[in-house]
Amino acid sequence: MATTSGNQNADDLILSSDPHHPANQICTLCAHFYTLGWVTGTGGGTSIKRDGRIYIAPSGVQKELMKPTDIFVVAEPPRPLDEAQEPGRRGDHRSMPYLRRPQSLSPSACTPLFLAAFTRRGAGCCIHTHSQWTVLVTLLLESSASPDVFEIQRIEQIKGIPASYDRAAGNLGYFDTLKVPVIENTAREEDLTESLEQAMEAHPNTYAVLVRRHGIYVWGEDVARAKTICESLDYIFRLAVEMRKLGIPWMAS
Amino acid sequence: MATTSGNQNADDLILSSDPHHPANQICTLCAHFYTLGWVTGTGGGTSIKRDGRIYIAPSGVQKELMKPTDIFVVAEPPRPLDEAQEPGRRGDHRSMPYLRRPQSLSPSACTPLFLAAFTRRGAGCCIHTHSQWTVLVTLLLESSASPDVFEIQRIEQIKGIPASYDRAAGNLGYFDTLKVPVIENTAREEDLTESLEQAMEAHPNTYAVLVRRHGIYVWGEDVARAKTICESLDYIFRLAVEMRKLGIPWMAS
Amino acid sequence: MATTSGNQNADDLILSSDPHHPANQICTLCAHFYTLGWVTGTGGGTSIKRDGRIYIAPSGVQKELMKPTDIFVVAEPPRPLDEAQEPGRRGDHRSMPYLRRPQSLSPSACTPLFLAAFTRRGAGCCIHTHSQWTVLVTLLLESSASPDVFEIQRIEQIKGIPASYDRAAGNLGYFDTLKVPVIENTAREEDLTESLEQAMEAHPNTYAVLVRRHGIYVWGEDVARAKTICESLDYIFRLAVEMRKLGIPWMAS
Amino acid sequence: MATTSGNQNADDLILSSDPHHPANQICTLCAHFYTLGWVTGTGGGTSIKRDGRIYIAPSGVQKELMKPTDIFVVAEPPRPLDEAQEPGRRGDHRSMPYLRRPQSLSPSACTPLFLAAFTRRGAGCCIHTHSQWTVLVTLLLESSASPDVFEIQRIEQIKGIPASYDRAAGNLGYFDTLKVPVIENTAREEDLTESLEQAMEAHPNTYAVLVRRHGIYVWGEDVARAKTICESLDYIFRLAVEMRKLGIPWMAS
Repeated sequence: MATTSGNQNADDLILSSDPHHPANQICTLCAHFYTLGWVTGTGGGTSIKRDGRIYIAPSGVQKELMKPTDIFVVAEPPRPLDEAQEPGRRGDHRSMPYLRRPQSLSPSACTPLFLAAFTRRGAGCCIHTHSQWTVLVTLLLESSASPDVFEIQRIEQIKGIPASYDRAAGNLGYFDTLKVPVIENTAREEDLTESLEQAMEAHPNTYAVLVRRHGIYVWGEDVARAKTICESLDYIFRLAVEMRKLGIPWMAS
Repeated sequence: MATTSGNQNADDLILSSDPHHPANQICTLCAHFYTLGWVTGTGGGTSIKRDGRIYIAPSGVQKELMKPTDIFVVAEPPRPLDEAQEPGRRGDHRSMPYLRRPQSLSPSACTPLFLAAFTRRGAGCCIHTHSQWTVLVTLLLESSASPDVFEIQRIEQIKGIPASYDRAAGNLGYFDTLKVPVIENTAREEDLTESLEQAMEAHPNTYAVLVRRHGIYVWGEDVARAKTICESLDYIFRLAVEMRKLGIPWMAS
Repeated sequence: MATTSGNQNADDLILSSDPHHPANQICTLCAHFYTLGWVTGTGGGTSIKRDGRIYIAPSGVQKELMKPTDIFVVAEPPRPLDEAQEPGRRGDHRSMPYLRRPQSLSPSACTPLFLAAFTRRGAGCCIHTHSQWTVLVTLLLESSASPDVFEIQRIEQIKGIPASYDRAAGNLGYFDTLKVPVIENTAREEDLTESLEQAMEAHPNTYAVLVRRHGIYVWGEDVARAKTICESLDYIFRLAVEMRKLGIPWMAS
Repeated sequence: MATTSGNQNADDLILSSDPHHPANQICTLCAHFYTLGWVTGTGGGTSIKRDGRIYIAPSGVQKELMKPTDIFVVAEPPRPLDEAQEPGRRGDHRSMPYLRRPQSLSPSACTPLFLAAFTRRGAGCCIHTHSQWTVLVTLLLESSASPDVFEIQRIEQIKGIPASYDRAAGNLGYFDTLKVPVIENTAREEDLTESLEQAMEAHPNTYAVLVRRHGIYVWGEDVARAKTICESLDYIFRLAVEMRKLGIPWMAS
C-alpha cells in the first residue's frame, strides 16, 4: 500500500506477527468494539501510544474489517498541541507530521482528541465510541438541572473506575459518586478538542468525557485499562437508561 | 445445480475463489446481516451490480446459510425498467432475462426494487432489511403529523449519511436534518416499485426509502458504502425508538 | 455410551458424518437456538422426523453443548397416540418404545407434544422455545378481551407464515391476519398434549401454538420450514412487545 | 509465570490438556459469561471445587481473555471459615493458604463468598455475575413492601431451579413460588460474607443470593448445575424487568 513519509519503510511501523503490536491490537479491538455496538457504520475509533509512537485507526473505514495497513502512525509530540503548533494549525489532523499515512485513507478527525489524552493525561490508549447508551444518557441530562455532568452512585460497577490519577488512590468505592463530564457536540469532530481539554482541567481525575448526542472518549494507561474502564462506563450508562425507564433515580436519596 | 440460461456455463458467473466476487460477497453479507436481525426468517435481501451484471439473493432461503450457487444473475438493463419493458410486464421479476436462474429457487420479489436503485441511482449495491427498528419508526410516524418522512437532527451518527448524490458535497453535517422518505406497503413486494421510484424522484438525494410496517431499502455506490449507510441508519432508527420511550423528541427545538 | 434398545447397534441410528443427519442437525440447531435465547438453561427442545424415525433432544441438558450421542430415537407411531396407546398411558414419554435411549439422560417431557405435530400435522420438524417474547405476548394477552389467540395484521413479516396446510394456498398475505392460538400452561409439560391437540383441531391451519407463561411449539414440513416459521413468529412477537411499549395497537383499526 | 507456594510445581495444578480441568473450564466459562453480559469490565467471577482443591478466577482481569495461568488455587478448608480462622482474619482472601498464587495478580475479593458456598452448601461451582437484570430487579425491590426477597410465580422457567437441597425433591414446580433472597451491598466485597451466610441460613433451600445494586451469587453441585441455574435465574430476572415495564405483576393474583 502506498504511503507517504520520510521513511521508505513506513510499513515496518505496522507489520508485525505479534498480536500485541499496536497495529494488530487496534484491529482486534475495533472488531470487538463493533460487536458491542460502539463503532457502528465506521463511527468511533481507537488509538494506542507506545514507545514514542501513536497508532491511529483511519476515518471512514468499516472498523470490524480494518487491517494493520490501514493504520496511521504519528510521533508522540513533545508537549501539548497548543504549545507545539502554530496558531490556527492547533490540532489540525490533516497537517500532522505522520510517520505513516496510507494514501487511500483519511486521517481520523479524532486525532487531536486522542493526542490530548496522550499528552495531557499520559494515557497509553484512548477509545472513542458512539455507543447508544452514551448518547441516550447525554440526551436525558440535556433537560436536567445539571446537564454538564453525569452522576450516579451506589452501583457496584463504579468500582471499575479509577478514583484519580494517583494510582495509590485505587478505584472508586461503592459509596463514592461517579462523575463523568459532558461537553457539547460541535460541527467538526476536531473542534471538540478545546472543550475536551477544558473538561480534563475541570475534572482532573476523570478518565472519560461524554460528548452530547455523540458518544464518549475514554482513556487509560494501557489498552487493558482503557478498555475495562470503557466497558464499565458503558455498562453503567446502559443501566442508567434502564433505570430511567423504570423510574429509578440515579442518585440514591 | 441445474440452472436455465442461454449460457451453458452459467455457474462460471457465480463460482470464484475471490471472497470479493459478488456471489461470495452476497453470502458473507447476508450471514452478517442475519446476526444484526436484518434478514430474520428469510426476510430481506441483498443485490450487487458489477461489470454489467446484477447478482441477487433468492427468495425464501435462510439468508445465513446461503451459498453462491443460490444466486440469480441478470444483465444490467440499458435503462430504467419502465422504458425498457412492455406495459404490464414492468418490473416483473418472474420474466426477467436471467443469465443464471437456479431451478429449485424463486427469484426475489425485491428484484425490480434493486433494479430501480441500479438504473435510476447508479447504485452498485442495494440492501433490503426487515430490521425491527425500521418497522417501529414507520409505525411511530404513522399517527404523526408528517407520516411520510422520518426526520431527526443533532445526532452525530447522521454524519455517516451522504448529503447528496454529488460526492463533492460530502456527508450530512451535525446541524443538518436527516430525512428518509416512507412509502406505504403493498400486498406484493414488486408493487412497491412505482412508489419507491416516486420517492427517489421526490427525494433526489436520499440513499434510502423506508417501507411502512415492512423495512427499508438502502443503496450506495458500492458494497462498503451501502452497508455503512445502512448501519448508520439502523443505529439512528434504534436510537429514535429508545428516544421515544424516554420522551426525547427527534427534532431539537 | 450405554443405551437400551432391542438393537445392539443403536448408536448407528445417531452416528453419521453427514451434517444433515437428524442427530447432527438437532445439535447444530440447538446450539444456534441457544444464541437466540430460545433454549436458555436447558429449556426448550427440538425434534426431527425422518424416514420413519423420530429424533429427540433429551431433557435437562445444556442445549448448546449437546452431542449426537445424547439423542433419543423413537419409531414413528402408525397413528395418533390417543388411538395407539392404552388409556392412562397416552403420551407417556417414559414408556415410549425407544429405539435408542441414552441411559444417563431423561427423555424429554416434550415428546408427546412433538409426536402430536408429527402424527396429526404430518410435520417433519418441531421446535419448542422458551423465548421471552412468546412469554411476554401471552402475559399481555392474559388480561385482554381475547386471551386465547394472538392476532396481528399489516406487518410484512407475517408473509413468512404459511396460510394453511394446503401448500397451494401459499403464505399469509400482508392484509391477512396472523392468528396463533394460546393454551394454558400445566404443571407437567406432557399434560399440555391434550390442549395442544385441541388447539390444532380448532385452528387447523396453524403451524404454532403458544403456551401461556411458558413458550411456543412450532412445526413445519422440514427443518428449514419449521425454523423459518419459528424465526418469523419470534420476530413478530418481539415486535409486538415493543409496539405495546410504544402504545401502538397490534390490530390496525 | 512466577507463583508463590510451598510447591515448586504449582503450575501442575492448573496446566492440563483436558478441557474439563477446572483451570481450563473457568476460562471457557468466563469467556462465555462475557458474551452474556455477566462479567463486563472485569466484574464478576467463577470458582470450581474439585478433588479437595478450589480454583478461582483472579480479580481485575479481562474475564474473556483469562488464561489457566491466571488461576488461583486453594486447598478446600475442612470446615466453614468462621470456625477455621482466627477472629478478625475471617474470610480474608489476602491471607488464604494458596496452593498457587500468581504474583502479578490479585486474589478475588469474592473468595470468601465462594468458600461459603463450598463449605456451607457443599457446592462444586459458584458463579458471581454483575448481570444488569439482577441489579435492576434489586433496584425495583428496594422501594417495595418486601425489599429482601425476590418472588415470582407461574413462569415455566422456574422449573429450572431446584426445589431444595434434597435432590429427591426435584426442581420447583410451575405452581410453586421462586424466592431468591436479597442482601445489602457493602463497601468491600469480602464484607458481604456474613450476610451471604445469614441468607443461606434463612433460606436453606436457595441456590442463589442477590446482592442489591451489585449482582448475584449462584452455586450448584457441579459446573453444569450452577451454570444452568444461573442462566434460568437470569432469564427470569430479565423477564421480570420487562414485565414491570409492561405493567404485569410478578405474583399472579
